[in-house]
Amino acid sequence: MNTPLEGVTILDFTTALAGPYCTLLLAGLGARVIKIENPRSPDTARGNSPYLGADGLKAVRDRDDDVSLAMLERGRNKWAVTLDLKHPAAGAVFADLVQKADAIVENFSAGTADRIGIGYAQASALNPRLVYTSISGFGADAQGSSQNKAMDTIVQALSGLMLTSGHPGDPPVRVGVPFGDLAAPLFATIGTLAALMQARATGRGQQVDVSLLGALSALVACEPFDAMQRTGQAARTGNAVPRLGAFGVFACADGHVSICAPTDAFTAGLFAAMGQGDLITDTRFASRDQRVANSPELYALIEAWTTRNATDDVVRALEAQGVPAAPVRNPAEAMRDPRLLRRGETVRLAHPVHGDVGEVHAGGLPIRMSASQVGFDAPPPGLGEHNNAVYGQLLGYSAEKLQALRDQGVI
Amino acid sequence: MNTPLEGVTILDFTTALAGPYCTLLLAGLGARVIKIENPRSPDTARGNSPYLGADGLKAVRDRDDDVSLAMLERGRNKWAVTLDLKHPAAGAVFADLVQKADAIVENFSAGTADRIGIGYAQASALNPRLVYTSISGFGADAQGSSQNKAMDTIVQALSGLMLTSGHPGDPPVRVGVPFGDLAAPLFATIGTLAALMQARATGRGQQVDVSLLGALSALVACEPFDAMQRTGQAARTGNAVPRLGAFGVFACADGHVSICAPTDAFTAGLFAAMGQGDLITDTRFASRDQRVANSPELYALIEAWTTRNATDDVVRALEAQGVPAAPVRNPAEAMRDPRLLRRGETVRLAHPVHGDVGEVHAGGLPIRMSASQVGFDAPPPGLGEHNNAVYGQLLGYSAEKLQALRDQGVI
Repeated sequence: MNTPLEGVTILDFTTALAGPYCTLLLAGLGARVIKIENPRSPDTARGNSPYLGADGLKAVRDRDDDVSLAMLERGRNKWAVTLDLKHPAAGAVFADLVQKADAIVENFSAGTADRIGIGYAQASALNPRLVYTSISGFGADAQGSSQNKAMDTIVQALSGLMLTSGHPGDPPVRVGVPFGDLAAPLFATIGTLAALMQARATGRGQQVDVSLLGALSALVACEPFDAMQRTGQAARTGNAVPRLGAFGVFACADGHVSICAPTDAFTAGLFAAMGQGDLITDTRFASRDQRVANSPELYALIEAWTTRNATDDVVRALEAQGVPAAPVRNPAEAMRDPRLLRRGETVRLAHPVHGDVGEVHAGGLPIRMSASQVGFDAPPPGLGEHNNAVYGQLLGYSAEKLQALRDQGVI
Repeated sequence: MNTPLEGVTILDFTTALAGPYCTLLLAGLGARVIKIENPRSPDTARGNSPYLGADGLKAVRDRDDDVSLAMLERGRNKWAVTLDLKHPAAGAVFADLVQKADAIVENFSAGTADRIGIGYAQASALNPRLVYTSISGFGADAQGSSQNKAMDTIVQALSGLMLTSGHPGDPPVRVGVPFGDLAAPLFATIGTLAALMQARATGRGQQVDVSLLGALSALVACEPFDAMQRTGQAARTGNAVPRLGAFGVFACADGHVSICAPTDAFTAGLFAAMGQGDLITDTRFASRDQRVANSPELYALIEAWTTRNATDDVVRALEAQGVPAAPVRNPAEAMRDPRLLRRGETVRLAHPVHGDVGEVHAGGLPIRMSASQVGFDAPPPGLGEHNNAVYGQLLGYSAEKLQALRDQGVI
């Protein structure tokens, strides 16, 4: 066994970001993830700009084999079959699939899966060992207006995240990375794996229910913003954390540097790098409490040094003193970090036909396992690419039956 | 079996936030997590302000039974034993523990665990089935200055996260929620569960290696900032997403509202809520492309409406039209959302002695499982609280041996 999830089959009824990211992680761990799409209205992610084609990256699709980045990224290592769930003959096909599956992952709005006949009750009646993971905006039990589709910006607003960056009184800060979409699939993956372990031990599956709002709120709540505020500490402190002393982001001549010097030893190193080693004996800065009390002067002194120097020089001087420091990079630089690429934490995307074109990077599976082959190494499937493999080989449908399903528009 | 990880024993050699959050999640799924602390220098999280005591929340510890919020939150559902790993007699105790364990989770700096005799090679020689999860700043294989301790602000800077919020040319934006610390434990939990599944199937454990920088960078790379920029789309767009039409955060008379109206139907609902339903036939706003082209006028019209009205009224008017909308809440409000509390996604913290005092909230386990009792329901252990249960009952040490270990300062 070369992957942790070898032999695990997962039916993937997800679209957008949250659901497909969950099944991408499961595929990266070795599960056979079968993405199910309506033959006449495929996943809209296939039509999202930008695209990658033989001639590289482009905003508009103009060739048949151009593939959207959304699909190139989140379709990796998955299989794809077609099935029109609204067709009267689809129920029998769904039942056959469920009996071969270990888990379903879906991210319909609350209530929709039940209505179209593929809900938890229906699926578990067909296969009691099945793990059924539901990712929704506000929970599988949501009622009324809470059933509405949640979007990342809604979830960020409700979770408190937008009022943790910046300073008190500033407008909210929408975070560019869609954590409102990305927190839930991580918890849903954890829940799916845990339920698979339990199903292997007991023979019984169950529903795993993760909400976008709950997942992000639980992470926001890890930092005691409320308790800090109630005990007299500021909750929004912008780019610095003055309660830790010299700690935060500072402008350089050509960019910004992050410096973390919460201890006396790090602060001594920082002052030495600044060429002002004596400051560590200055009564204003000799202890953390003093540095906190005099943080405006401390920060002004640091920034007077950083703004006169290039970011790389500042980082080098601090590293030489053993002080944690780093340049502030943009996503394009970060993704190309050789250390991340070597570890597979970011990867260069391959086009299914044209291979390594366009120099496009994406996230990898940031989990290294010493005895398993994990990660995303296969390009995304075309629409219905695995119909024969799944319906023919896995379910054992005859060539005639397959053709009939095609002719009737079921698949 | 009432929990997915019943019967799983995990040795927890973690401190700070990333490591303890990983083992907290595993404890919430039912694993027996045994936290190991030096008897003379316990986890510094026990000494972090703020605290909770009989008399409620406080910045300064002034009673023996005051407990830090950090421990109250991240110590939930864990056991605690003492062991001085530097004591010559500790190796034999460690060996006995490892033989009873299914997994170790540690977040020492790269190389440290090997040096103190509890590294992967040493542990797996004692128990080949053991899963050994390492959480570090830059990876278990880091060399030289990369071995330095990573802190959330460093990881945020290097990952690209800080240059995804705000507008082009703005300074970097440090995000208040420490995603630099929180991404890695989620992936480490996924990796640990996957490796436990594989170990159950094959009888062989392995090392799971997750870095703070890799984990956060992989999430940042989920959004194609670089490709958007290269194809002419802005990557930093502040509180709005103009490429989706009316989509973002708007000021109200008394706060801010998040509105997501990317489709024609949602936009028609938005204009109706504004009392200007005719605008949907206006050539400036009739299609997404037109709305994108005229987004400054569109946003000005929306904000002219929202700034005249209270947030709650704006949200109500939009909900009546089926338009996704929500108030921007602060973390204190978010944690107290009855919907989150009912689902256990946020919870009220209990003091180990005084119970429900101080009205302090924290994150729950945002995974609901229909057939399992999961979540955080037990207060944190005191230092060495489970020495008898672990050394006496689990390892079978005699009372005399336990006393000798205590007398020698081993435990």
